Amino acid sequence: MSALSILVLHGPNLALLGKREPEVYGRTTLAEVNQLLEILAKELAVSLTIRSSNHEGELIDWLHELLGDDPSLHRDGVLINPGGLTHTSVVLRDAIASIARPTVEVHLTNTAAREPFRHHSLVAPVCVGSIAGFGSSSYALGLRALVGYLRAP
Amino acid sequence: MSALSILVLHGPNLALLGKREPEVYGRTTLAEVNQLLEILAKELAVSLTIRSSNHEGELIDWLHELLGDDPSLHRDGVLINPGGLTHTSVVLRDAIASIARPTVEVHLTNTAAREPFRHHSLVAPVCVGSIAGFGSSSYALGLRALVGYLRAP
Amino acid sequence: MSALSILVLHGPNLALLGKREPEVYGRTTLAEVNQLLEILAKELAVSLTIRSSNHEGELIDWLHELLGDDPSLHRDGVLINPGGLTHTSVVLRDAIASIARPTVEVHLTNTAAREPFRHHSLVAPVCVGSIAGFGSSSYALGLRALVGYLRAP
Amino acid sequence: MSALSILVLHGPNLALLGKREPEVYGRTTLAEVNQLLEILAKELAVSLTIRSSNHEGELIDWLHELLGDDPSLHRDGVLINPGGLTHTSVVLRDAIASIARPTVEVHLTNTAAREPFRHHSLVAPVCVGSIAGFGSSSYALGLRALVGYLRAP
Amino acid sequence: MSALSILVLHGPNLALLGKREPEVYGRTTLAEVNQLLEILAKELAVSLTIRSSNHEGELIDWLHELLGDDPSLHRDGVLINPGGLTHTSVVLRDAIASIARPTVEVHLTNTAAREPFRHHSLVAPVCVGSIAGFGSSSYALGLRALVGYLRAP
Amino acid sequence: MSALSILVLHGPNLALLGKREPEVYGRTTLAEVNQLLEILAKELAVSLTIRSSNHEGELIDWLHELLGDDPSLHRDGVLINPGGLTHTSVVLRDAIASIARPTVEVHLTNTAAREPFRHHSLVAPVCVGSIAGFGSSSYALGLRALVGYLRAP
Amino acid sequence: MSALSILVLHGPNLALLGKREPEVYGRTTLAEVNQLLEILAKELAVSLTIRSSNHEGELIDWLHELLGDDPSLHRDGVLINPGGLTHTSVVLRDAIASIARPTVEVHLTNTAAREPFRHHSLVAPVCVGSIAGFGSSSYALGLRALVGYLRAP
Amino acid sequence: MSALSILVLHGPNLALLGKREPEVYGRTTLAEVNQLLEILAKELAVSLTIRSSNHEGELIDWLHELLGDDPSLHRDGVLINPGGLTHTSVVLRDAIASIARPTVEVHLTNTAAREPFRHHSLVAPVCVGSIAGFGSSSYALGLRALVGYLRAP
Amino acid sequence: MSALSILVLHGPNLALLGKREPEVYGRTTLAEVNQLLEILAKELAVSLTIRSSNHEGELIDWLHELLGDDPSLHRDGVLINPGGLTHTSVVLRDAIASIARPTVEVHLTNTAAREPFRHHSLVAPVCVGSIAGFGSSSYALGLRALVGYLRAP
Amino acid sequence: MSALSILVLHGPNLALLGKREPEVYGRTTLAEVNQLLEILAKELAVSLTIRSSNHEGELIDWLHELLGDDPSLHRDGVLINPGGLTHTSVVLRDAIASIARPTVEVHLTNTAAREPFRHHSLVAPVCVGSIAGFGSSSYALGLRALVGYLRAP
Amino acid sequence: MSALSILVLHGPNLALLGKREPEVYGRTTLAEVNQLLEILAKELAVSLTIRSSNHEGELIDWLHELLGDDPSLHRDGVLINPGGLTHTSVVLRDAIASIARPTVEVHLTNTAAREPFRHHSLVAPVCVGSIAGFGSSSYALGLRALVGYLRAP
Amino acid sequence: MSALSILVLHGPNLALLGKREPEVYGRTTLAEVNQLLEILAKELAVSLTIRSSNHEGELIDWLHELLGDDPSLHRDGVLINPGGLTHTSVVLRDAIASIARPTVEVHLTNTAAREPFRHHSLVAPVCVGSIAGFGSSSYALGLRALVGYLRAP
Repeated sequence: MSALSILVLHGPNLALLGKREPEVYGRTTLAEVNQLLEILAKELAVSLTIRSSNHEGELIDWLHELLGDDPSLHRDGVLINPGGLTHTSVVLRDAIASIARPTVEVHLTNTAAREPFRHHSLVAPVCVGSIAGFGSSSYALGLRALVGYLRAP
Repeated sequence: MSALSILVLHGPNLALLGKREPEVYGRTTLAEVNQLLEILAKELAVSLTIRSSNHEGELIDWLHELLGDDPSLHRDGVLINPGGLTHTSVVLRDAIASIARPTVEVHLTNTAAREPFRHHSLVAPVCVGSIAGFGSSSYALGLRALVGYLRAP
Repeated sequence: MSALSILVLHGPNLALLGKREPEVYGRTTLAEVNQLLEILAKELAVSLTIRSSNHEGELIDWLHELLGDDPSLHRDGVLINPGGLTHTSVVLRDAIASIARPTVEVHLTNTAAREPFRHHSLVAPVCVGSIAGFGSSSYALGLRALVGYLRAP
Repeated sequence: MSALSILVLHGPNLALLGKREPEVYGRTTLAEVNQLLEILAKELAVSLTIRSSNHEGELIDWLHELLGDDPSLHRDGVLINPGGLTHTSVVLRDAIASIARPTVEVHLTNTAAREPFRHHSLVAPVCVGSIAGFGSSSYALGLRALVGYLRAP
Repeated sequence: MSALSILVLHGPNLALLGKREPEVYGRTTLAEVNQLLEILAKELAVSLTIRSSNHEGELIDWLHELLGDDPSLHRDGVLINPGGLTHTSVVLRDAIASIARPTVEVHLTNTAAREPFRHHSLVAPVCVGSIAGFGSSSYALGLRALVGYLRAP
Repeated sequence: MSALSILVLHGPNLALLGKREPEVYGRTTLAEVNQLLEILAKELAVSLTIRSSNHEGELIDWLHELLGDDPSLHRDGVLINPGGLTHTSVVLRDAIASIARPTVEVHLTNTAAREPFRHHSLVAPVCVGSIAGFGSSSYALGLRALVGYLRAP
Repeated sequence: MSALSILVLHGPNLALLGKREPEVYGRTTLAEVNQLLEILAKELAVSLTIRSSNHEGELIDWLHELLGDDPSLHRDGVLINPGGLTHTSVVLRDAIASIARPTVEVHLTNTAAREPFRHHSLVAPVCVGSIAGFGSSSYALGLRALVGYLRAP
Repeated sequence: MSALSILVLHGPNLALLGKREPEVYGRTTLAEVNQLLEILAKELAVSLTIRSSNHEGELIDWLHELLGDDPSLHRDGVLINPGGLTHTSVVLRDAIASIARPTVEVHLTNTAAREPFRHHSLVAPVCVGSIAGFGSSSYALGLRALVGYLRAP
Repeated sequence: MSALSILVLHGPNLALLGKREPEVYGRTTLAEVNQLLEILAKELAVSLTIRSSNHEGELIDWLHELLGDDPSLHRDGVLINPGGLTHTSVVLRDAIASIARPTVEVHLTNTAAREPFRHHSLVAPVCVGSIAGFGSSSYALGLRALVGYLRAP
Repeated sequence: MSALSILVLHGPNLALLGKREPEVYGRTTLAEVNQLLEILAKELAVSLTIRSSNHEGELIDWLHELLGDDPSLHRDGVLINPGGLTHTSVVLRDAIASIARPTVEVHLTNTAAREPFRHHSLVAPVCVGSIAGFGSSSYALGLRALVGYLRAP
Repeated sequence: MSALSILVLHGPNLALLGKREPEVYGRTTLAEVNQLLEILAKELAVSLTIRSSNHEGELIDWLHELLGDDPSLHRDGVLINPGGLTHTSVVLRDAIASIARPTVEVHLTNTAAREPFRHHSLVAPVCVGSIAGFGSSSYALGLRALVGYLRAP
Repeated sequence: MSALSILVLHGPNLALLGKREPEVYGRTTLAEVNQLLEILAKELAVSLTIRSSNHEGELIDWLHELLGDDPSLHRDGVLINPGGLTHTSVVLRDAIASIARPTVEVHLTNTAAREPFRHHSLVAPVCVGSIAGFGSSSYALGLRALVGYLRAP
């Protein structure tokens, strides 16, 4: 089994996890989510690079690195929670489409059960698939899904 | 850890899996999906009751049994692929809301990347969460998600 | 005064009445609703045939019987709670229009005050009228309304 | 059983009842509707105050009296046919919501079967429920519904 | 010329043909339509299997048989009048797409000239073509069209 | 030639004519419009009753008088400029439909060339016809149109 | 008073007037409409050039002549019934806007009371005003309106 | 059996048939379609007048001839493929409605499966019925349908 | 500094302030709001005329007085809370536009966070600006804003 | 470098260029635009055939000639300003798609900054690309773009 | 009275204030706005931290600091002019909701009177209230409103 | 001829040009595009400043510099490819409007022929004009268009 490398991207406002509207997003912090992901990564024998930003442009810069001149920044797939950019960012969608790496979209909350403007994802159509509504477990399920997809014959 | 029981429901047209538009839905048959689920269920120490129907009313009857007079039919949670009913069935939505059992929605394909009438789910808002786009792996991820949710403290 | 006969149809999920989301639909069971209707029917000197199904096709079959070959199944009018089919079923609407029997639509809840997809009824335009929002009393009011309509000069 | 008092409000154009488009609204006059209501009120042991106006502001003034300084104008519930204001009046809706008295909306015609702009009611969401399509019987059914609601335990 | 076999499906409410709103649907009964189809089938040297149901799920079950384990149920093409399901049924559409058999949609009435909700067909995009507005002749034209399509070089 | 009587109704804000946004509505006052109408009425041998109000309810009351108990208030037709009520008032529309007297709608400005919410008239469908855009001449043209319609064989 | 010259344009299908759906458009023929216009023109001391075409391009060619090199084709204003082009033709609208001559739009029928696609006029915003619903009198009223506009100080 | 005469109209771009996007419209030329129609006409004992134009106005002129002064141009019915005008031409629709001759609409392609702007037909509501999706066979089926309609008792 | 005079208008249902849905609108009464405004007016050296009505027509009458024949009723600016008329009244909008006096719109609640039909204001585009969401302080802020605007160089 | 031949088509109302609304479309006449194009054509070593029409059908006829029997009318590409047809003409779009010649769409004005009905182009999706907003220079840029495209390796 | 601290955020393009489209936004510079705010802050006894950025991500970073690890960056409330982000930024909305500090939205211009895409605010529903249309005074009013809200009992 | 200076801005994801979805965007890299632009600039005797960013805020900062305190950063016009921001960024639109420098929008692909969300440009209405669909030649055409515009008398 090859040693896969995954880029994990946390979009805007996720750095506040645990402090931000805990009745909506739960009390697990982003550090705890990342820890959880690292443990699962070890189990699945993949390596993770985890990054978080409130800046749309910075997320895109990081995605571009997967196709860039520095091979040490190349990765096999992407696990992304685009936060509120999910519903508004054509440029993030374009970046994901540009890099041609399997990408899985995850959401902490069940976006379909929230405000109407959260029901539509601009990002989903350029991803392999989506997972929403399981709190921090969405990330673990998403990592499993991505690794499964990358290792499928 | 308690022995959880799960009802797995396959909606309309899923019985054709493997034969039906394989370039869209893949070549795994429903029997193989169910086998896969049983193996994972053993691993997770849960018991499954698996049912498949092309009849909306029959799916609802089975959901009602979870609240019905015969306790042998009660289950702790539901894993459902509503197929095309996802987008049109208020009555299936009402049935899921009625039974008050944690329900997880799964889809083989990435519905967000298909025809516009598949972008909206009537069922999702009454589920815990949704998983779409990972072929037969969507079921496995969904079972993990549901069991995780039921066992969360 | 002629002895009128009425078909009472309960649509999908109504069998769960009393158990289903009691904060929305109340605690009266369907059996109690039917008892209440029978008492009022006696008072109004009409006979009732009461049926309940989660299957759209079965509801339509029963409506067809009013026009069918077996005269013992003919009825003078219909009292129907189509449940969630109210908002999506062209075929139920067509069936009601087909049988040419005065039909009254009733709803337990005030559908106009719920989710937007419950604000529009496909069935109402082919009924005599609609009653919504009075819990199980909606049925009693509907029976009165239907009998009044049938006995109007 | 307490002696309930009800305010009955007839909105714009209802004063013409019997003369106005009789093929749509029937030949019963408003005076006859009111007589009918008074008879039923006696039967139900409630007292009625009946008012009719073409002026939206006047209807609101009368609703405000239920919360006003003169206790002789207080009533236990409201039966209202808002006529064409049903579909356009946010202020009438706000007035009904303001007075916090159970209100029942009635319509002579089956509004769902008429022009599209009559399919949506701004008033219904702040009422207990609605009754439409039974001609002058809609009022009688509405009074029964309101009294039933007010006397429910 | 090969002996083609065709599945003819009549959807909800078509069993009432001749009795149902004759000013809209005409006075020919379904039995007469079927007779007419059998005569034309003989002329075109094809065999027909004709089925009618008010149950969406039953129609889908019959479509599935074309791909099923029992070769005696396989057919070369499908002639379908989906009735009111035309406008609402994603699952019927999915079933037709699944079976990969040329399908022709027919309607008795000119749906484009009726209520707006009948102007759009969910089923048409997965059919070879559509014929609407010629009463029972729509079926005969549809059978000709289907056989012509199946026999085209 | 019979002596026709016409009710002329000026809706909200028309009393300000001449003072109000003269670059939009011109400098002719309502008194001058009425004078102009009286002169034309003499020429056409009809009698006018002219009324103006900012109150929707008052306009409706005056329309009701045409069908009321006092025959001295009956008129043969109505010339109305409903002002901004044109676009929002279902009750004014209902009043015009109720009185069953030929009604002509006039507008000073070319409403089709103004804000989108002025492009649709709720009143026009229950009128004989509409005239818009000719300043105070719209009234004169409207009176000619109405008289012509009333005197047509 | 100057001798004004007016171009009268009849759009598609108006040549059939009198024969075409007489219950909708009346029994007056186009020749009779034109005669009526000529009589009124004499009374108003203006000269008319009357043309009729089913070709959008031909109507535009004629409008262009008003701005063209041949001064014998110049006119002071335009009276137009664009027929069905009213609702669909951006190029006719552009032609009217291009020639910078006062234009009045007329319609035989009350378009606001017909099918929804006839409620919106692309042409009206570039005209002085519109007159609709008075049968052939709409033309006479339109000519008066146009002449009045052209002779206004 | 009377000798029926039919006008066949080919709308814009159909003259290019066979050369135009053959992967969409097939390789049969318009001359071949016409030949096919003439053969079928002989079989059905009807006479055809076939015309083709890229000009909306010319198509309307030809339709007007059916009601015109020259009886040699009168026909009993119309078979029309309006091409792209199907979706935009109110004037063609009005022309078909004007002539009061049974008209059948045909399309080579399954318009319901193409771009959204091709899903709605302005012409269909004024036709007897529509046939779409069977390539050049749509014309033959349309001719049969029209003749059947004209000869129905 | 000139002595400015301001007209303060309270629209429908505001008279109930303090009694009406206090969890939405707070417990301050309209009398207290007016007292608060008078105190601030003294501080800002302006005079106030305060009026309240449930009648749209009466509000318009009062606005017209600012342009009327009685100079004692003229005012320099208007502070208005149109209540529910904000979202539906073209005539109130027209009245504000007509009088050509700087007008400031205020709302007690944050209308953008309530029902969708409260998100759009017909009145705002003809005002200087809007203030919403600060309870009775919205009035004080609005008075400051209006006086600042009127006194700006 | 091959000698390319280009068809230049000016749509409706462009013949009026220079005279028509000069504040919108500028003062350059169509003759001057054509001269400018001929000079650039010489520079680019291509030959032009320039045509202008107000008739949609005539524009389509000319496009068809590129695929027609007369090779002297064949051209390598098309430069078109469809004028107002841009937004409404499915048949022009179909004609461009039919001829399978690279086509470039140009507009004098910046259509995106004008009325909403000018924001969408039916023609653009079947062109190579679009150029809008540079007055008569749009044509020169379009010719360069087209020649560049045709000469690209 | 406690010493409150307020974060003032100027969104994209506000740094250009005074230079940018002065006919729309006025000639006051951002430095002058800030000076004005500091003077008022002194008067109200609150301390301000003022920041301006064209970067959505930077604005969110600053909002996060209010909930962050460095208590010296905590503030009691936020005064924000989100500029064009008002209408498009779900992430800014989420950030404001996340920090759970009372926030007031201000706008220099009356956004309701500008382009339609400026009529809806994504940010307003998570703010206390909004103030728009008073130029730089909007800021002063907003600061008063915020301080009033924070000091309310 | 004056020496013009132009700011060239490449928006998000354009840095990946040549690597990113080459079947959509071609194989020319951004460096090659820039070289091509520099050569053309020399030919046109203008100087270019070329910048590229994935950050919306950075693009706005650079636009602001044209109006800023450092005159060495002032430029005469802007050539911009906003990438996916075209369809979503009100703030970029506002920045372009703010700087009051002629701006030309270019796109590599024919956006009108792609996904619906790419059909509308928020940026175009504040630009001089737009060029789309000619791959890297769109830039060269855009530079010519901008220089032509700046040098027009």
